[in-house]
Amino acid sequence: MAETGARRIRLGMVGGGTGSFIGYVHRIAARIDGDYELVAGALSSNPATAKESGKNLGLAEDRSYTSYADMAAAESVREDGIEAVAIVTPNHVHVGAARAFLEAGIHVICDKPLASKLEDARELAGIKPKNGAKFLLTHNYTGYPLMRQARDMVASGKLGKLRLVQAEYPQDWLAEEVHNKQADWRTDPEKSGIGGCIGDIGTHAYNLARFVTGLQTEAICADLSTFVPGRQVDDNVNIMLRFEGGARGMLWASQVAVGNENGLLLRVYGEKGGLEWRQDEPNKMWFTEFGQPKQLLTRGGAISGGEGAAVRIPAGHPEGYLEAFATLYADFAEVIRSGKDNALLPTLADGVEGMQFIVAAVHSSQNDSKWTRLSDV
Amino acid sequence: MAETGARRIRLGMVGGGTGSFIGYVHRIAARIDGDYELVAGALSSNPATAKESGKNLGLAEDRSYTSYADMAAAESVREDGIEAVAIVTPNHVHVGAARAFLEAGIHVICDKPLASKLEDARELAGIKPKNGAKFLLTHNYTGYPLMRQARDMVASGKLGKLRLVQAEYPQDWLAEEVHNKQADWRTDPEKSGIGGCIGDIGTHAYNLARFVTGLQTEAICADLSTFVPGRQVDDNVNIMLRFEGGARGMLWASQVAVGNENGLLLRVYGEKGGLEWRQDEPNKMWFTEFGQPKQLLTRGGAISGGEGAAVRIPAGHPEGYLEAFATLYADFAEVIRSGKDNALLPTLADGVEGMQFIVAAVHSSQNDSKWTRLSDV
Amino acid sequence: MAETGARRIRLGMVGGGTGSFIGYVHRIAARIDGDYELVAGALSSNPATAKESGKNLGLAEDRSYTSYADMAAAESVREDGIEAVAIVTPNHVHVGAARAFLEAGIHVICDKPLASKLEDARELAGIKPKNGAKFLLTHNYTGYPLMRQARDMVASGKLGKLRLVQAEYPQDWLAEEVHNKQADWRTDPEKSGIGGCIGDIGTHAYNLARFVTGLQTEAICADLSTFVPGRQVDDNVNIMLRFEGGARGMLWASQVAVGNENGLLLRVYGEKGGLEWRQDEPNKMWFTEFGQPKQLLTRGGAISGGEGAAVRIPAGHPEGYLEAFATLYADFAEVIRSGKDNALLPTLADGVEGMQFIVAAVHSSQNDSKWTRLSDV
Amino acid sequence: MAETGARRIRLGMVGGGTGSFIGYVHRIAARIDGDYELVAGALSSNPATAKESGKNLGLAEDRSYTSYADMAAAESVREDGIEAVAIVTPNHVHVGAARAFLEAGIHVICDKPLASKLEDARELAGIKPKNGAKFLLTHNYTGYPLMRQARDMVASGKLGKLRLVQAEYPQDWLAEEVHNKQADWRTDPEKSGIGGCIGDIGTHAYNLARFVTGLQTEAICADLSTFVPGRQVDDNVNIMLRFEGGARGMLWASQVAVGNENGLLLRVYGEKGGLEWRQDEPNKMWFTEFGQPKQLLTRGGAISGGEGAAVRIPAGHPEGYLEAFATLYADFAEVIRSGKDNALLPTLADGVEGMQFIVAAVHSSQNDSKWTRLSDV
Repeated sequence: MAETGARRIRLGMVGGGTGSFIGYVHRIAARIDGDYELVAGALSSNPATAKESGKNLGLAEDRSYTSYADMAAAESVREDGIEAVAIVTPNHVHVGAARAFLEAGIHVICDKPLASKLEDARELAGIKPKNGAKFLLTHNYTGYPLMRQARDMVASGKLGKLRLVQAEYPQDWLAEEVHNKQADWRTDPEKSGIGGCIGDIGTHAYNLARFVTGLQTEAICADLSTFVPGRQVDDNVNIMLRFEGGARGMLWASQVAVGNENGLLLRVYGEKGGLEWRQDEPNKMWFTEFGQPKQLLTRGGAISGGEGAAVRIPAGHPEGYLEAFATLYADFAEVIRSGKDNALLPTLADGVEGMQFIVAAVHSSQNDSKWTRLSDV
Repeated sequence: MAETGARRIRLGMVGGGTGSFIGYVHRIAARIDGDYELVAGALSSNPATAKESGKNLGLAEDRSYTSYADMAAAESVREDGIEAVAIVTPNHVHVGAARAFLEAGIHVICDKPLASKLEDARELAGIKPKNGAKFLLTHNYTGYPLMRQARDMVASGKLGKLRLVQAEYPQDWLAEEVHNKQADWRTDPEKSGIGGCIGDIGTHAYNLARFVTGLQTEAICADLSTFVPGRQVDDNVNIMLRFEGGARGMLWASQVAVGNENGLLLRVYGEKGGLEWRQDEPNKMWFTEFGQPKQLLTRGGAISGGEGAAVRIPAGHPEGYLEAFATLYADFAEVIRSGKDNALLPTLADGVEGMQFIVAAVHSSQNDSKWTRLSDV
Repeated sequence: MAETGARRIRLGMVGGGTGSFIGYVHRIAARIDGDYELVAGALSSNPATAKESGKNLGLAEDRSYTSYADMAAAESVREDGIEAVAIVTPNHVHVGAARAFLEAGIHVICDKPLASKLEDARELAGIKPKNGAKFLLTHNYTGYPLMRQARDMVASGKLGKLRLVQAEYPQDWLAEEVHNKQADWRTDPEKSGIGGCIGDIGTHAYNLARFVTGLQTEAICADLSTFVPGRQVDDNVNIMLRFEGGARGMLWASQVAVGNENGLLLRVYGEKGGLEWRQDEPNKMWFTEFGQPKQLLTRGGAISGGEGAAVRIPAGHPEGYLEAFATLYADFAEVIRSGKDNALLPTLADGVEGMQFIVAAVHSSQNDSKWTRLSDV
Repeated sequence: MAETGARRIRLGMVGGGTGSFIGYVHRIAARIDGDYELVAGALSSNPATAKESGKNLGLAEDRSYTSYADMAAAESVREDGIEAVAIVTPNHVHVGAARAFLEAGIHVICDKPLASKLEDARELAGIKPKNGAKFLLTHNYTGYPLMRQARDMVASGKLGKLRLVQAEYPQDWLAEEVHNKQADWRTDPEKSGIGGCIGDIGTHAYNLARFVTGLQTEAICADLSTFVPGRQVDDNVNIMLRFEGGARGMLWASQVAVGNENGLLLRVYGEKGGLEWRQDEPNKMWFTEFGQPKQLLTRGGAISGGEGAAVRIPAGHPEGYLEAFATLYADFAEVIRSGKDNALLPTLADGVEGMQFIVAAVHSSQNDSKWTRLSDV
């Protein structure tokens, strides 16, 4: 990770002001490996919050903007202007902001899902960034070393031809009606889009399953529910999946499963072996070769490694969510510096597929769980 | 458990000869609490095996029969004839044997699923047993103390109104083509019926979910697969469920999930709380009240109990599969002696519902995963 | 297990009347594999309890005795007299009863520790049983299949030369002053002997460590404590051990470690590998070869087996405490029938060593934790 | 954490050049919360390595020193000189370097153990730092939020009067003879001091136990071993402890326990409750109130908190070793800025006690495990 003598990349941020969870996470991720320096921000749509947040983050007063458009315009003409920007707003702002910066030749790091509407996502995917500006979608769970190792193991045939995928992402924080900054926009279709749980965490589980298995989705069969009265978007997602080549899957995401904090779980089974991993113990992964005892692989331990599986500290000293997130930032720094893409990093195309997944799930659910192709939405 | 001075119930067995897994299990279950004495058997359809098996079990030569019909006829007229019989054959024999004994006034303990064909199950449910002979279907997982406690906790409102049910039963023993006594009949539609995995273990997961939650199934949406070439029945089952009152569920059963031995898992979530239990650690159950830390309830430990939750030994000394199975036997002994039914014990009606579940799943899967009511098959 | 056509061994019991925990356990253990039939008992020192308990167990009235001496005398001259007896009383009765039956030519199954006093144990070890009557000490944890497999793995060199042994047995049931049948005699030096926790569960941990490793103890260094005011015996045991050949160990047993039910744990490390096992998940054992990932061995699963590792049901269906206990009974039935000893079964010599361990621990603790040889007490 | 608008503290580093594990860890810890900027270093005793390492870290050429003495001299007179320094060398360099900077009025962050010799540690503790320069000893495990919560729970009486402490720190990386930068100095008494395993990880386990319980050590009884032939220091540590007030403890640390990576474990039991925590799952802690079910407390989850228990991200998203380490850095930044000490942070006095613990353990072990007071060495 970094420490190669390279100069820090000048970073801006859109969203992420006081009270933001994900903005704070992005900033830590940007700091961990020392590849970025935050120098500008449009940290809130509320000007007072934006200014105060900028001050807390040590931004120069003239680089603490009140709109992303102003920031894109101003920074793109400064000699010391930002080279990259992190977009950490509610979903409906992603595309407009991403477009503004990409068209200004500034690299974009964007939170997921890519948009609140599929058409917006598609439009964004169609633009031509100035000066080849790069784009990173922060499906951060792909940064966990053992998930990258898993991808490598699948790709190299250690599991044989895949048959089954089981993905889960249960939470319980919305089991009752809740009102706070985090909950409000996520349950407001104007800001989150038509998907609630499916967009917020269902896409993470889906993306991770696709990342690790490399399987192409054929169709999905969905049953979305809303359990908390008055809620306008889904808060529980049951989905069955069919993949090209015959593999089958199930995906469960929930915001109302009492007793679950962030229970992201991925299990993959092939003709020769199986893998099991859960985010709340991210330094461990179970691997079984058919007919052999289960093996507990550990991050950095015996039989570890795999392309891009970044390990900062020795096995047994746990790394976590922030390090996994930081790995995306570190890898993207390398992309920015070298101009060379990294196949492990989530792209605009992944963002569009995520939106298709959301829309297809909602459509299927509205049509009596009809099997629906992602390409049909 | 027993040790009340009561005389042992004279027991016969159909099936369960040399090489049988489940016959051996039933015999241990019958012995554990001392309520039964095995005195007769039609232990195999192969006369030589039947005789030799009878000898090994210490049966008198004249009570080791070569057909269940002979046994029913002979035992029902002996003064010291069997009072109950355990039927532990492949599925297609269950109904004929059960009928013969019930009509002879002999109590029946029958392995699951109830039949190989739904119509046979229904027919059996329609007969009138002689002398009020009783019937027990050995959905043995309902005998686990913590599953009975879970049922009690749900019924008493500890979880609030139920929202979600997640049931799993993954195995891997049929991940490749296998030939042996256990595998052969289970993958032969003539003997197992139209369901493979769905009948063998899917019904267990389904029954347990129904037992614990008390929810009535509205409809199911199924995607059954056969991964091993040449296999004539399903070996993986993905199902979504809708329950009356709005709860939703998922059920996954598999015989090809490499790394799973007998991974029966049940998770139930309501408005106020959640429960999680897995068979491979059956003396532990997670209970979470919303907003509180997870609690690890243990069999016989603090906050344990519940109707019929039989505990033989202190918390921390693990009980297992055989004790849970034995509890069904012990409870049924009490039914036999008292003539009074026990609402905790699986019945003929449960057996018919299990067959409906199998048929509905197969029909749904064949009809593009159409939502299918159990009452429509 | 059994089911070989052999006749059941006629069994008697001393102690184990109403309210007894361990008597009930022995009876289930005796029933599980069908090798014994309980036909006589001196079930309590209280005649009324003895009679009522005998009735509940279905004993003939004339075979429900009020003293073990009467029972030994009467049964040894009956044609259909008991062939074996289970002694399940408080410690101070063990030796007298064992002697009476051995000298009457009746095989003895005796609970541990062997005695309340070392000299009694030694005396018993010196007698000559009539007709070669056999003796079994129920250090039941040695019956767990994975502990027998562990012993086998150690013996066959899978761990290399042993270096470290970590044994634990924490409980919490005596964390406060408690009065009931179980607690009272265990905390009464007249009945339990000079050791409290050390005798009741410390000996189990010690015996299991010795069983699995085969290491000979060189000396121990002990620090025994009594935390509950007024208690006359130790309720916490800290011990360091040195074994012949240079291996070192620690042993912790406690009755006051809040949050522990019966947390027996054994960890063994050698030059080439390590093993870890805990009773509350007895169907799993961790095995690590140096430089390789940890493997999760399961009872009956891949890479299982080993001499005497009795497996009744398939991997993933948990067996527990009662099955492990029953394995000692089943193995002893084979010893009785064949007249041939089984090196896996705990003997009188093990019982004497257990008493030496207790006494050495108490002496060391009283002498400022001086290293003490077992042979010096 | 930080993000308060405060200027970054200018940091230097002694040691931590290419190939260093702990230097890299300190740098990440210093970056995570954005409170420090590394601007100078004496990164290696090898000048070429020092220079190259400085370049990789982006240090100005003239601030990449080849000796800590030069660095202390030069930086203390620069206007923009370092305000704090991290000392991350082998043990024998700690004291000299710490002294140089403290006497130059530069705050010191020093890795543990404090010294290679007790007398050096005592001498350091006796100096008077210029301008009240502060000192932090990085016993990093005290930075884990759940360990701070545990300390808080103990202090507030949730466990009642303490009775038992069980601390462990098993590893296996030195199970065989190993030669590399990390192993070499740790097994060289000239650099590590008289303790091997006891100094490297035994002190961590000891410090953590002291931090959480607040118990004062009365005496220890130790048995240190060296299993790998030719090794000059201990590689396995068995210790029994007595605390003032009557509590007892055991401490096991090992570098040869095959299958353990960094298995730091702490268990504390009092009259009313028990706590259990292990580093490899640092976001979970078991808490049991006597007579109640075990509760799984999670970092940031229900019933969390406690003084100084820094939580960056929501429960269920794991934080790890680096975040715990960073918390010490963040807290120390606050100490530097405010001039006000923080009772949670490890001090020089803790460093001296750690050295006493090492020396007392070695003395006890050499004297037949005689109980030894820390104050007697």
